[in-house]
Order: sequence, then structure tokens, then C-alpha cells
Amino acid sequence: RLGRVLRRKLGEDWIFLVLLGLLMALVSWCMDYVSAKSLQAYKWTYAQMQPSLPLQYLAWVTFPLILILFSALFCQLISPQAVGDAYIQYLGIPVGKEGPFVHIASICAAVLSKFMSMFSGVYEQPYYYTDILTVGCAVGVGCCFGTPLGGVLFSIEVTSTYFAVRNYWRGFFAATFSAFVFRVLAVWNKDAVTITALFRTNFRMDFPFDLKELPAFAVIGICCGFLGAVFVYLHRQVMLGVRKHKALSQFLAKHRLLYPGIVTFVIASLTFPPGMGQFMAGELMPREAISTLFDNNTWVKHIGDPKSLGQSAVWIHPQVNVVIIILLFFVMKFWMSIVATTMPIPCGGFMPVFVLGAAFGRLVGEIMAMLFPEGILFDDIIYKILPGGYAVIGAAALTGAVSHTVSTAVICFELTGQIAHILPMMVAVILANMVAQSLQPSLYDSIIQVKK
Amino acid sequence: RLGRVLRRKLGEDWIFLVLLGLLMALVSWCMDYVSAKSLQAYKWTYAQMQPSLPLQYLAWVTFPLILILFSALFCQLISPQAVGDAYIQYLGIPVGKEGPFVHIASICAAVLSKFMSMFSGVYEQPYYYTDILTVGCAVGVGCCFGTPLGGVLFSIEVTSTYFAVRNYWRGFFAATFSAFVFRVLAVWNKDAVTITALFRTNFRMDFPFDLKELPAFAVIGICCGFLGAVFVYLHRQVMLGVRKHKALSQFLAKHRLLYPGIVTFVIASLTFPPGMGQFMAGELMPREAISTLFDNNTWVKHIGDPKSLGQSAVWIHPQVNVVIIILLFFVMKFWMSIVATTMPIPCGGFMPVFVLGAAFGRLVGEIMAMLFPEGILFDDIIYKILPGGYAVIGAAALTGAVSHTVSTAVICFELTGQIAHILPMMVAVILANMVAQSLQPSLYDSIIQVKK
Repeated sequence: RLGRVLRRKLGEDWIFLVLLGLLMALVSWCMDYVSAKSLQAYKWTYAQMQPSLPLQYLAWVTFPLILILFSALFCQLISPQAVGDAYIQYLGIPVGKEGPFVHIASICAAVLSKFMSMFSGVYEQPYYYTDILTVGCAVGVGCCFGTPLGGVLFSIEVTSTYFAVRNYWRGFFAATFSAFVFRVLAVWNKDAVTITALFRTNFRMDFPFDLKELPAFAVIGICCGFLGAVFVYLHRQVMLGVRKHKALSQFLAKHRLLYPGIVTFVIASLTFPPGMGQFMAGELMPREAISTLFDNNTWVKHIGDPKSLGQSAVWIHPQVNVVIIILLFFVMKFWMSIVATTMPIPCGGFMPVFVLGAAFGRLVGEIMAMLFPEGILFDDIIYKILPGGYAVIGAAALTGAVSHTVSTAVICFELTGQIAHILPMMVAVILANMVAQSLQPSLYDSIIQVKK
Repeated sequence: RLGRVLRRKLGEDWIFLVLLGLLMALVSWCMDYVSAKSLQAYKWTYAQMQPSLPLQYLAWVTFPLILILFSALFCQLISPQAVGDAYIQYLGIPVGKEGPFVHIASICAAVLSKFMSMFSGVYEQPYYYTDILTVGCAVGVGCCFGTPLGGVLFSIEVTSTYFAVRNYWRGFFAATFSAFVFRVLAVWNKDAVTITALFRTNFRMDFPFDLKELPAFAVIGICCGFLGAVFVYLHRQVMLGVRKHKALSQFLAKHRLLYPGIVTFVIASLTFPPGMGQFMAGELMPREAISTLFDNNTWVKHIGDPKSLGQSAVWIHPQVNVVIIILLFFVMKFWMSIVATTMPIPCGGFMPVFVLGAAFGRLVGEIMAMLFPEGILFDDIIYKILPGGYAVIGAAALTGAVSHTVSTAVICFELTGQIAHILPMMVAVILANMVAQSLQPSLYDSIIQVKK
């Protein structure tokens, strides 16, 4: 009899995990679908205004402004921590989708478990909330990026100090199922030909890097550690600054839409492609920025028509060196990301930091390619520098430094679908963590400290 | 003052981890070097005896016999659980290196921490032994296969039910360092051109598999679950059988070398290449077997000179179909692995099970390639069947089923250096676990139960 009860309970836990995975996959897919459509509308409108510069500017600024304001309003009306619109990330404002997504997943998990508790008593245990949160976080991250494994490990590192191996299993199961359904939906919708990684890279497999490049990777790791600490520090200062200034914070509390509105307006204006945007690849939406930064070509060595680079052509300016463009992009996006993630709307910090890290890594990679234009000679084999590989490592190291986790390496190679750079990436992530942890708390801890 | 003490402790923990990683990398490298040399001597001796069949047979059987007996004697003399020779695995007898290796790593960790405790008191905590064991296990597995990440996750799943996130970090750090040094040593020794995966595969990246192949992957997972349970069951029965039979076990206790001697003699005789061995690729050592099973070619469709396949030519027999060869290989190696891992010598069960799983997956893959010789048509694109991908999935699923872990999927894609099959692999591993866990305990739990 005991065995039967036990089996029944186990069965129901599985059903719970499957349902959670399915639900989140559907939510994630719907979100992506809606945002893809609105992005299409945005780009179409922008293209239609072609001859007239003022009209173009109007379209460029208005779209994100409306969405941000809508999102802020939604937040304000429904709840202080609403299941908000996460798809604003796509419109050039550096905020991420994964923050609200983890939130949605946790809420779904809580509601589902309430529902399931009608049939069984397993859901009334002491560790109930931690369990729900961990699995919710794993499914949220895993489903958002299509990285089940990285999602589970990230959720382990972020949510707890002691971890039940049982939850590792449950997270693994739910996240795999969720990522699987999510990718299958994409195939059925003809968005993808088959199940592949989200930002698939095509680096050569034979000699992805040479041992002599390792110091450069280590430098990326250490620099990313410092940059991550600076990011967390400035982010906290901005939040504290607004709070400390009594009159300002009271004014903003009264006019809640003002702060997001101004921030969005300034950022959108600065990235306007025919204006400042041309010097910082402002045309690119975050996802496009990532996939172009992971590009297999070496930009500093590119001669001839930039159009042959495809979408990456945006990075190449007729007058300005590509290294300066990347540097400008990095510096501008750095403060923009800090300001944007302090807005009182549901947003994540992971995606913008990921873009920043990729830009920084690419910067180092392109400089290396300039210093060694012929590649590095070792054992009679010439290793060409692959700036795209540097970008992947930079992205992993900076996100690792900001969140104080090492699992970002796993998320990175699940995202790119290539594991060739695993060892230098892990070395860079560990170095970045060592530096960042000794200087600042993680971004999440910092936010919690400020909000207390 | 507290801060200084804390920092000192932290620093020393890092030093401990670095030393542990370095030590294990050196041990692993020396072990590989010695075994590679002895394997070379073995093959050379065997080749020298070329014209005379009896002499060849003598050389084929004597080498592993001497090594196994030496290993058993060593065990008996030094300690019941000695730091034995693990390199016998290379000589065709299906036992693994990772078992003793984890043991060595744990011993090294314990000795090192004793040594470190002269400087600091951190090493006298209540959770001391669990911590040491976990990190030792992570470094052992990670360094043995060059898979730091998989090693850490595997050690989490195997050693504990509640897990300190701190140990995840420490394991990650030590295992990465160890794997890194291990791979760098290989590069310096000109064994490898650069740092790459151990069994690197070269599957096409664009369309690694089609959705319609998923049922086949699911079938592999479920079958591997049953096979894993059968493996654990038979393994326990063999151990119990020897123990229950009073006279037999007393006789074997007196003549400790007899049991390993007979087993090795029988196995070596059966795999003798000109004899039975020709029908089961007996010539291949475990590592060669794995790299040939992960081969990119489709053997059933191969026409012409088998020599063009390189080492995989061994699998192709002029008279017998390759499917029957793989089936024979699987069946023979199945019972051989069970018997060999019950020998009273330090050996691991992971590697032999990995070979078995790869063979089973390849079998299914080759049968699929026979059924769909033209590939599968989907959306006007023809997806050719990749039997090598099936082999990777089978290996992950069977090791997962036998050890009751899901991290084997991670070990697998770190070993192969390709992540393209991650989703079907995770699905197969989860299915295999679901089946195996409901039927039998894990191999490790089963051994502990018997030894109690």
C-alpha cells in the first residue's frame, strides 16, 4: 500500500513538471511570436519613412516609448511586480526577457502546485517554496534561451547555498521538456529548419585556438571581472541616488511614467541609426547584436564591399575604424544598460550584460587580429585569430562576473552550439568571478540590499 | 582582523584546490603515458609474431594476464583497496580507469588537506569528509576524461542528496584547473596539436538530425534503461553467486590470483583477432572502440575498400554483415564487462558501460540507416541518418541508466566536443533513468549493498 501511494505521488510530481514545462514553453513561444511580429512592424514602419529623416526619427523613438510606457502602466495598474511585457527588449532598449520570465515561471509553478495539491499532499512540505522557486527559475532561464542545462545550473547557483539533488533532477526534467517543446514549436512554425542552438556559431573545429592565445583569454576574464564589479557598483549608485534624493524620488513616485519615458527617449534618440547610431551599430536589436558579434569573419581584415558580411555590415563604417565602433558601442551600451535596468518595469539584466560582454570580447579579439594579422605560428601551423570566439568568451565572463556564477559558461556553449572553446571559457569565467567576488556583491544581491 | 583571517583561509583553500588539480593532472598524464607505451609494446609484440598464429595467440593472452595478475597481487600486498594500476583497461579487458582514479583523487585530497591543516584550521570542519570526497570525485572524473563540467555534476549526483553550492564551485575550480593542465601536457608532449575533446566527433552541424528520428532516440533511451537494469541485476547476481557458494569463495580467497587470471584468460582468448575476435572487432582497445563507434561514416552503406574507413575497417568483415558484427560485439562485451568488473582489482564500471552503450546506439543507428538508405525526407530536405550520433546517445543513455545519473549527457558532449545532439540526448538519458530507477538500484548502490 505504501509503495502504491509513493508511486502515485511520484507520478504526480512528474505530471506537475511536464505541465510546468509545457506551459512555459507555450508562454515563451507566444511571447517570442508577438515580439517578432511587433519588431517586424517596427522595422517596416521605419523603412517606409525612408526619404524623410524627421519621420524616421519619429518612428524610431515612438515605438519603444509606447511599449515601455504601456509596460510601466501595466505594472502600476495590475501589481507592483506584474507579469509584465518582456518583449520590449527587442526594440533596442537594453533590458532582458529572462527576469520577468523567471518570475512568470515561478508564479506558474506556484499556481500549478496549488492546483495539483487537490489530488495529493506532496505540495505541503516545508521546503515547498524553495523547491518551487528553484524549478521555476530553472525552467524560466532554460526555456528563455533554449538552454536547459545552463538554466538548471544557473538556478542552483543563484537560489540557494544548500541544494537538494532531487531538485537538480526535477529542474533537469522540467527544463529539458520545456526547451524541447519550445524548439519543436519553432520547427513546426517554420522559423527553424530543425532543432539547433539559438545563436549558432560556425567556428572551425580543427584548431579553434592556440595555447599562445590563452593569456589574451585570461586578460578578458580579469578585465570582465573588474567591469562586472563596476557595473554592479554603478547600478547600485544610480538606484541609491534616485532614492536618496527625497524630492526627486517623490516626484518620480507621483509621475511613474516619467522616468521610463525619459530614459527610453534619450536611449532611442542616441541610437537613431542616421545620427549617433551609425557609429555604434545602433540599428541592431540585442539579438542581432549578439549574432553579429559571434560572426566568424574578422572585421579588421575585411576589404571590399561590406555587404558581403550580411547583417554584420552595420559594424563597418566607411570613415571610422571598426575597433572604434565596437568601443563606442561598448561604452554607450554600458551606461545605457545600467540606467535601463533601473527602470521600474519588469526586466532582466542578463541579456544586456551578455551583449556588453560579447562586445568587449570582440573588441579584444579584433585588436588581437590587428596585432597578429597573419595569425600565430606554432609548430608550423598558422592559427588565425577568431574574434568571434573571443566574443563568446567575453559574454560568458562578464555575465559570470555580474551574477557571481560559473554556469554562464554552460549557458554560453548551449547558446552557441559549439563547445570548442570550453576550457579557455571556463578559465576566463573563473578569473572573472575571482575578481568580481572580491570587489562587489552580485547584481541580484545588490538589488535586494537596495530594496530593503 | 576577522577579514584577514577569512582571506587567509580562502587563499589557502584555493591553493589546496590548485595543488589537488595539478597533482591529479600529473598522475593522470603519467598513467596515460605508461599505458600508451605498454599498449605500443603490446601491439608491436603482437605484430612481430605475424606469421605464426600460436605465437600471436601467446602474446595476445600473456600481456593482459601479466598485468591483471600484477595488479591483483599489488592490491593484495599493499592494501585491500590499493592505489592500484588502472591502466589495464587499455589491453582489451573491459574495465575502466575512472574507478581507481576517483579513489586516488580522494586519497590525494585527504593527504593534501592533512598537510594543509598545518597552516590553517579550516580542514577540521564537520563536513570535512564529504567536502573532500566530492571534490576528489569531481577532479578524478574530470581529469580522467578531460570533462571538468561533467565530472563536477556527476560527483554531485553520485555522492550526496543535499549538496553545498560551495562545493560546486570548488569542484568546478579544481576540475577545470586539472583538466586544463592535463590537456596542456598533452599538447607539450606533441600528442595533440591543441586542446580539443578526447573523442572528437565530426558530425555535420547544419542538420544533425530530423524530428522524425526522435522516436528512434526515445527507443534507444528506453532500451538502455532496461539494459542498464539487466546489467546491474546480473552484476549483483555474479557477485552474490561467488559469495554464496561457500566452498568456491573460500577457495578463491585462498588463491586470490586465480579468479582474475581465469577471467582474463577466457576474455583474451575469446577476443583473439584471428579467432572469434574477427567477428566482434576484438582487435580494438576500448578507446579505439569508442572512437570508431563515433565514426562519421555509415557502415552498412559502405561499398568498396574498407581500408578507406581507417581504423573502423576492423568492423567490416568480408563475409558477415556489419550489423551482426556489432550485435555480437555488444552481446559478448556485455557479459564480459559484468564478469570483469567483479574481479577483485581496482577498476571502474563507467568506461566498459560507455563502450556497450555506444555499440548499442550504433546498432540502432545502422539498422535505421538500412531501413532508410536514402535518408528521411522532411520539408524537401533529405536528412541522412548519422549512426555515429546514435552511438553517442546510446553511450550517454546506458551509462546514465547504470549509474542513475543524468550528468552523463554532459560528460558525453564534453568528450565528443559536439553539442548538436544535446536535446535528443537529454531526452534519451531521462527516459533511460526513468526505466532503470524503477527496476534496479544504481551499480554503486548495488555494490555497496552486496559488500555490506
